[in-house]
Amino acid sequence: MSGMWTVKVVGLGVVALSLSVELLGWLLHRLRPKRARTEVLFFPSEMACLEHIFAPSLPQSCCCSLPHGVETSFTRLLRCILSASSSLDVCVFAFSNMDLCKAVLKLQCRGVPIRVLCDKDYAAIHGSQIGVLRRAGICARCDLGSVYMHHKFAVVDNRLLITGSLNWTMTAVQSNKENVIVTEDPDLVGPFLKEFQRLWLHSDPAQYFHLSDPKPADKPTIPSTDKP
Amino acid sequence: MSGMWTVKVVGLGVVALSLSVELLGWLLHRLRPKRARTEVLFFPSEMACLEHIFAPSLPQSCCCSLPHGVETSFTRLLRCILSASSSLDVCVFAFSNMDLCKAVLKLQCRGVPIRVLCDKDYAAIHGSQIGVLRRAGICARCDLGSVYMHHKFAVVDNRLLITGSLNWTMTAVQSNKENVIVTEDPDLVGPFLKEFQRLWLHSDPAQYFHLSDPKPADKPTIPSTDKP
Repeated sequence: MSGMWTVKVVGLGVVALSLSVELLGWLLHRLRPKRARTEVLFFPSEMACLEHIFAPSLPQSCCCSLPHGVETSFTRLLRCILSASSSLDVCVFAFSNMDLCKAVLKLQCRGVPIRVLCDKDYAAIHGSQIGVLRRAGICARCDLGSVYMHHKFAVVDNRLLITGSLNWTMTAVQSNKENVIVTEDPDLVGPFLKEFQRLWLHSDPAQYFHLSDPKPADKPTIPSTDKP
Repeated sequence: MSGMWTVKVVGLGVVALSLSVELLGWLLHRLRPKRARTEVLFFPSEMACLEHIFAPSLPQSCCCSLPHGVETSFTRLLRCILSASSSLDVCVFAFSNMDLCKAVLKLQCRGVPIRVLCDKDYAAIHGSQIGVLRRAGICARCDLGSVYMHHKFAVVDNRLLITGSLNWTMTAVQSNKENVIVTEDPDLVGPFLKEFQRLWLHSDPAQYFHLSDPKPADKPTIPSTDKP
């Protein structure tokens, strides 16, 4: 009787131990927070043909002299922007890069809701793509403040933040020494989303005459910049 | 006999269960990765007296008209910089903010090794603090490339990254709409540290005549900018 009990107790102990180890492993796997996707891109980017980014499903037919099918900092940046499926919010000081504009227009064709906010002084300079975006029906607003709206960030699908020193210009991408952080870390994405919403509402031309900022009153043409 | 065994088995089971729960809690606490410190600061910063930042141990005696003892985005930024104990690497396009310069000089007085890298075109403009830093014995180099060194980041003690759209100027801090990310995430800090090291070595005047960049050859005065 005593021997049988000992066998039973040891057997039960082994089973309990095995189950505990299994449970522990499962719990650790479930409870360990997943590392947020994070990437740092440095510029200037190598020059490369962008055909495989803009038309990945088509047979590659480009005959330009640039390297083809190459991944660079710029192609990584474009891929992040083109990954948008539900929204794209852009908040940049200067937007004159035609490839970045092409990426935004491609999203517009797919029906992705897009909002673009930029500095008023740089919206109208030669080469600015703000007019192109508006003609395509994209809502692009200009910051109404009397100082620079110097941000350089975008948020994709309310979950992927793209931010850094890089203005959306050709010089920044191809020549300057710049950085861009791409991250899904909610501790970073959240504050930028909130700031975008604040600036977007503050730049609403419908609110224009209620603003206390004295500067726009001197420039009555600014409200018209919100026309798509 | 059988009753005694049952009591023993149940007792052992209870003890084993309690120990397992304790062990599980301890393991989860130990194995769960700590979230990296992350903070986002937005500018313009409220204006506030900085006496409590620069002389926290002294009795507050400032009589200026600004609010005293207030925490703002700028005081947070200064605190991050002043937390340096083993190193400070600064890589900024423009450095003309006197309070940020004062913070760097304070670290220099404490014996913290400091390296400052900035854009060559902006190193010599009116109000630039690069000369002040050099006169204090801080090693400040200028990027030798023919394009903008447009970064705006610093790394404290090789572990805390400060980066964003904010140049180290008075306008950026007090007027513009800007952002600064402060993070200890090694996935972000690592690439910026590596980039700083690469740019620092590339801007070494001792390497000057070995560089393939044709631009510096036209400007033989540039090597002298590394003199502290």
